[in-house]
Amino acid sequence: MEKILSADLKLGIIAGGQLGKMLIQEASKWDIITYVLDDAENCPCAGLANVFVKGSRFDFDAVYNFGKKVDILTFEIESINVEALFKLKEEGLKIVPDPSILQLFQNKEKQKEFYVKNNLPTSPFTSYKDKDEVLQAVEKKSLRLPFVQKLKTGGYDGRGVSVINTEADLKDLLEGECIVEEKVDIHKEIAVIVARNESGEVKTFPAVDMVFDPKANLVKHLVCPVLDITEAQHKLAEEIARKLITDLNMCGLLAIEFFIDAKGNILVNESAPRTHNSGHHTIEGIVTSQFEQQLRAVLNLPLGSTQIKMPAVMVNLLGEPGFEGKVKYEGFAEALAIEGVNIHLYGKKTMKPFRKMGHITIIDKELDNAVKKSEIVKNTLKVKA
Amino acid sequence: MEKILSADLKLGIIAGGQLGKMLIQEASKWDIITYVLDDAENCPCAGLANVFVKGSRFDFDAVYNFGKKVDILTFEIESINVEALFKLKEEGLKIVPDPSILQLFQNKEKQKEFYVKNNLPTSPFTSYKDKDEVLQAVEKKSLRLPFVQKLKTGGYDGRGVSVINTEADLKDLLEGECIVEEKVDIHKEIAVIVARNESGEVKTFPAVDMVFDPKANLVKHLVCPVLDITEAQHKLAEEIARKLITDLNMCGLLAIEFFIDAKGNILVNESAPRTHNSGHHTIEGIVTSQFEQQLRAVLNLPLGSTQIKMPAVMVNLLGEPGFEGKVKYEGFAEALAIEGVNIHLYGKKTMKPFRKMGHITIIDKELDNAVKKSEIVKNTLKVKA
Repeated sequence: MEKILSADLKLGIIAGGQLGKMLIQEASKWDIITYVLDDAENCPCAGLANVFVKGSRFDFDAVYNFGKKVDILTFEIESINVEALFKLKEEGLKIVPDPSILQLFQNKEKQKEFYVKNNLPTSPFTSYKDKDEVLQAVEKKSLRLPFVQKLKTGGYDGRGVSVINTEADLKDLLEGECIVEEKVDIHKEIAVIVARNESGEVKTFPAVDMVFDPKANLVKHLVCPVLDITEAQHKLAEEIARKLITDLNMCGLLAIEFFIDAKGNILVNESAPRTHNSGHHTIEGIVTSQFEQQLRAVLNLPLGSTQIKMPAVMVNLLGEPGFEGKVKYEGFAEALAIEGVNIHLYGKKTMKPFRKMGHITIIDKELDNAVKKSEIVKNTLKVKA
Repeated sequence: MEKILSADLKLGIIAGGQLGKMLIQEASKWDIITYVLDDAENCPCAGLANVFVKGSRFDFDAVYNFGKKVDILTFEIESINVEALFKLKEEGLKIVPDPSILQLFQNKEKQKEFYVKNNLPTSPFTSYKDKDEVLQAVEKKSLRLPFVQKLKTGGYDGRGVSVINTEADLKDLLEGECIVEEKVDIHKEIAVIVARNESGEVKTFPAVDMVFDPKANLVKHLVCPVLDITEAQHKLAEEIARKLITDLNMCGLLAIEFFIDAKGNILVNESAPRTHNSGHHTIEGIVTSQFEQQLRAVLNLPLGSTQIKMPAVMVNLLGEPGFEGKVKYEGFAEALAIEGVNIHLYGKKTMKPFRKMGHITIIDKELDNAVKKSEIVKNTLKVKA
């Protein structure tokens, strides 16, 4: 705090993707000196950070040496060498969220166990040591189709997840230690981001509607404010979010994805202790963006207002199937001609199919108009090679 | 345009102050490669630009060589070596706004002559070759008090302007070629920013109320939407803005400050062919910020919506009188605790009295609340040394 008041604060960010980039855009408003660790010299953050350090976030020495350069450390992805973080913490470095939180979230089994232990609603699950054990359980009929297999570690952006609807799908089972969840009869998916600082202040962002692209298994677009849920459901989702971040005793941001099943039950699907794709609309649509909120939470500053400025629809800009190579945007000017369109390009120099290359937030006083415009934008702005 | 579509566009910005910094924050959203020329290595832009080039904007070679590195050139201040710009233009570089516009705006006499020639309302003025000639005119009673003396060149942020109310004030007359304007009986000052692109599209931002600090002769705070003017006055100000940018046949952003006199007449006071202090609230309060609008205008992209998202009050954060040296912020957390407060620190490492060190935008659904909060914020967040 002393250091932010004298413009000397060195904030370390592991790693250098789009979430880090948008965090730097906010941090630059408070004249925070940003350090980024990433192994790719052309990552989204590289050109924008005050100091870019090349190195792998999985490498003990790289993470440890990086931590030694900064006053406070945060991250934009949870798969990091935690041993190095624990050692840095032991030596007095402030790391937010705490390395123990990161460790918990690196493992989907531990995440689920935490939900269950703390009476947070989630779909039932069983752990398996590998694919063969799953197949045996299916054969013995102790495991019934349909189900969802999730690798305990290493999953990201839909990777590490396999949905098994029919026996034919069993060939898609993933190799490795995993959990298997009962497949929820999903009526709807929503997400809530919650922030908490060291003083114990907790603030939720309004829930958003998540619409998935089944092919890419990525969010296709999201809508804020959320549609077609009851006030009671909205409140319950917020309460679960508050309870989860408080039970975790964590500081920082926590993004929680929920299923609402056919009966109207709300179940925690997954969560991540960081800024999230489901919060990008906050940059233009909410009084405080999720990135500023992360800074506030990490630096133990008062949390910002999460009031809606204007209804928003967020569309991920994914690499077009059938293309790969040096990025080429199509329809950029045409998309900007649509009133209320805000384009964020992440600065990834090469594209491949379904890679997240940017996002577009459409704001409009009328949410219906924003949804209509988002359909036009999706067919206008394309990332090819 | 080709280059922005392949993420290869190199945008040059002369110079590296806060306007440049906020432009880079926007440009980074479109993955534009930013180059900045400034002679101060610790200027606000230095840490954020992709490429920082040290050099004086007044120096022919520095400006020329800088221009040779980029695909398109814009600026955040009008006092630049225009000879270098003309040569770059001759050699094919795209410069927006055009060097001839810059040249016009470097000279307050030429600015006034342009208003008069194009039938734009402005206070009557006379040119003088120096202070002595002004004094002689006063003596001969061909010039009557009160009046405002403005140096033809070099004025900035209230410097280069002297208000002569009484004979005792005559000692404050400035040395140099100047114009003298009749002192307007000011009821109110408002500002309008207008954008125009190469395709001829023109868009105005809603007018703002400017409230000046008489001691510092700087904007103390501004309010959007503007209060206490008639719909007809608002329309007229917008029409004058549209006419001025069109008559100038310029591309880019033009910020126009108006006086409204006691009789309700609207007079052009001054204008600047760039982003402006009177447009900082657009970052949070308007659908398109003035910085994104500058990019759109400079790159001949469709201009963005200037619809109000939420009422806003903007307060300049000036160096506290009585302090000078390494910057020290006071009341940062306390200010952030006020709902709707957005703090921008420009990253100037040393402060002096009345230096612009940052700004704060307060947004609130009720403008009255935002005004009240701005009074609290002014007394909370301080820049000392």
